[in-house]
Amino acid sequence: MDLAPPRSARARTDTAARPLEAAAVRSWDAADPLRDFRERFELPPDVVYLDGNSLGALPRSTRERLAQVISAEWGMGLIRSWNDSDWIGAPRRVGDKIARLIGAQPGEVIVADSTSANLYKLIHVALAARPDRSEILSEPGNFPSDLYVIEGALRATPGRVLRLEPAERIADCISENTALVVLTHVHYKSASVHDMRAITARAHEHGALVIWDLSHSAGAVEVDVGACNVDMAVGCGYKYLNGGPGAPAYLFVARRHQATAVSPLSGWMGHGRPFDFVDRYEPARGIERFLCGTPPILGVLSLECGVDLLLEAGAAQLQAKSRRLSELFIALVQEMCSDSGLRLLSPADASARGSHLAYAHPHGYAIMRALIDRGVIGDFRAPDALRFGFTPLYLRYADIWTAVITLRDVLRTQCWSEPRYAARAAVT
Amino acid sequence: MDLAPPRSARARTDTAARPLEAAAVRSWDAADPLRDFRERFELPPDVVYLDGNSLGALPRSTRERLAQVISAEWGMGLIRSWNDSDWIGAPRRVGDKIARLIGAQPGEVIVADSTSANLYKLIHVALAARPDRSEILSEPGNFPSDLYVIEGALRATPGRVLRLEPAERIADCISENTALVVLTHVHYKSASVHDMRAITARAHEHGALVIWDLSHSAGAVEVDVGACNVDMAVGCGYKYLNGGPGAPAYLFVARRHQATAVSPLSGWMGHGRPFDFVDRYEPARGIERFLCGTPPILGVLSLECGVDLLLEAGAAQLQAKSRRLSELFIALVQEMCSDSGLRLLSPADASARGSHLAYAHPHGYAIMRALIDRGVIGDFRAPDALRFGFTPLYLRYADIWTAVITLRDVLRTQCWSEPRYAARAAVT
Repeated sequence: MDLAPPRSARARTDTAARPLEAAAVRSWDAADPLRDFRERFELPPDVVYLDGNSLGALPRSTRERLAQVISAEWGMGLIRSWNDSDWIGAPRRVGDKIARLIGAQPGEVIVADSTSANLYKLIHVALAARPDRSEILSEPGNFPSDLYVIEGALRATPGRVLRLEPAERIADCISENTALVVLTHVHYKSASVHDMRAITARAHEHGALVIWDLSHSAGAVEVDVGACNVDMAVGCGYKYLNGGPGAPAYLFVARRHQATAVSPLSGWMGHGRPFDFVDRYEPARGIERFLCGTPPILGVLSLECGVDLLLEAGAAQLQAKSRRLSELFIALVQEMCSDSGLRLLSPADASARGSHLAYAHPHGYAIMRALIDRGVIGDFRAPDALRFGFTPLYLRYADIWTAVITLRDVLRTQCWSEPRYAARAAVT
Repeated sequence: MDLAPPRSARARTDTAARPLEAAAVRSWDAADPLRDFRERFELPPDVVYLDGNSLGALPRSTRERLAQVISAEWGMGLIRSWNDSDWIGAPRRVGDKIARLIGAQPGEVIVADSTSANLYKLIHVALAARPDRSEILSEPGNFPSDLYVIEGALRATPGRVLRLEPAERIADCISENTALVVLTHVHYKSASVHDMRAITARAHEHGALVIWDLSHSAGAVEVDVGACNVDMAVGCGYKYLNGGPGAPAYLFVARRHQATAVSPLSGWMGHGRPFDFVDRYEPARGIERFLCGTPPILGVLSLECGVDLLLEAGAAQLQAKSRRLSELFIALVQEMCSDSGLRLLSPADASARGSHLAYAHPHGYAIMRALIDRGVIGDFRAPDALRFGFTPLYLRYADIWTAVITLRDVLRTQCWSEPRYAARAAVT
């Protein structure tokens, strides 16, 4: 038996031309360089969690750190902890850590607000920098909040329009009219990856700016905003970064843009001298100018614990395991669930997708409900997509085996004919 | 000895014409109807905490609740907790609780983002509702973040200006040109209270809207936005509401304004059908339309614990004790610190101020550092103001005695001549 993890599970099944065996899959876990990270998370027993792309799991270090922050820093330190525990420096400190995950430099990333609020800030920055251009370019089906936020920013900005073009046409549609391109690097549903380097370069050729949403990338997919010469980016703290429910988000602004970029959400924490309490706004010199209100300390410090684990694992290892997990899932579905009506919506080529997979099925909602009832937690995205996320820090190859066996059983039982699975409700 | 708390400590000293005694003050604690609340907070020993108006103390219930949220709801429940633990309903549920504190109706308040971000949203709403009026009216020295946020909102809105007029002239300056008046109900430094009812009425006479910042009011001062016919309001979660460092804020929009009010920060959680993932923004029907990104669950649920305690105590009791605490402080300073150079910046009449006191002193910064070193924690606001906050849930009358004794000693030692107290640094 070959104990070394194969380059790809699909390649292995193709060449071996025989079914994958549970024992083989277990042997990959034994050889997994990230195998010890699972024990550093709190995970419910009897659950295979394939939704870490929606809400990352709880690191044990986070639980301990938050207990300390709450009891010692808030409870005993009280207001003094802004200085004594450096709460005041936390948004920048954690931003600098996230910078290392995405190829940014220190001082180019800050933790603040939500992804949507951060996108709003950066859209205004971009529009102010390109006053004579009329278009913001994005794609239909982009993560809806990104589109809604563009709408919101344009509502008070007459003379600008949102132009939606299919992903494959985006590069060709960038023109001298384009002020800004707003794209999600890894698509939230299909997991398709945009060519960050090529689209950014194309935008720059035409004098346009680009904002990348890294919410489904950072922490699972290698990202290098520096090498790709990215202008600005935003990203989510509660998915692959394991910052906890509703954790604060982050934003990246390349240093070359910072001096002229002023946030519309110019709250006091973005002021150069917030504790002088002067009446006029003077933005802080660096990335701190993108802070708005008082930072949400529990969330920022929770996020820091999650990011620390990712940095310890390393972005290259994370991406390598993420791909092996999803390749294995695809191969097992091919083997065990053929003729089930499942159709892969994600790119078949691992290098063209992020760290989750989407499958269409006419009874997708019922199937996901039944899977969750059996302890395999993925999620559902309307109208028909089952989504399975592969978080390399706490998933084992054996979990993928369990998940697909369960999926096979659910499909065999035709759960959608059961009344309890018929009604559709929100699955966040 | 009179065991009943006097109507006001000042009145008592005036009429009794003799010094207050420690034993008398302790007897007021024994008769305090809120005395049992102190034990429901975690407080450091040997500290008199007079900065709850900056960061409220930690309720024991919050520590326990957060431990449960982190371990059980996030750790074990994972993504399922959005529904199973009703995380998704938390911003509205806690908003409805805050509504009871400020005289609003259910469905008029929601917890979201920061005070500054919420103010930004409501300024845009007001400007959209008054398209032909050029002025936003506020006062110089208003809480700076509020002024900065107005600046930020106006930067992308040509043709509108911010007009600053002294507090006493605000009502007279409201005209047919006024789109919006933005005021902080209780001034963050002086604690002066604006006449919410009169200014709101005056604005309405002229067709203007008003946004009140309740950050230094709710939880310590009685507020009735309904009776005052207030249009919109924002407020802070981490001061008197005890929501924890950087806790999310809240906003109020009177029901009559909701249907036409659209947030510029139109993120997905404010959408009417967020889980349908459609491309176009359709605001939710009610107050939920003012949500933006995914709510910060740790912060929202921490805030809920703090608000629950305030509701249990009742706004009238809170205000009554708050006034007695500050009256006692003033009386003791008069007695013990006469000729010390301290000058009361706050209104002497308790009904004209909020729940903190500011004193000017040329060596204010050094005095506050020395007080903090001796366990009496207030804060300093440039250029010369010592600020002491009186939180009725966890302060005892005896604490006020201790604080003023310590202040007297610090003044006697002329701490400002010591090198360690000479340099000025930020006190958050």
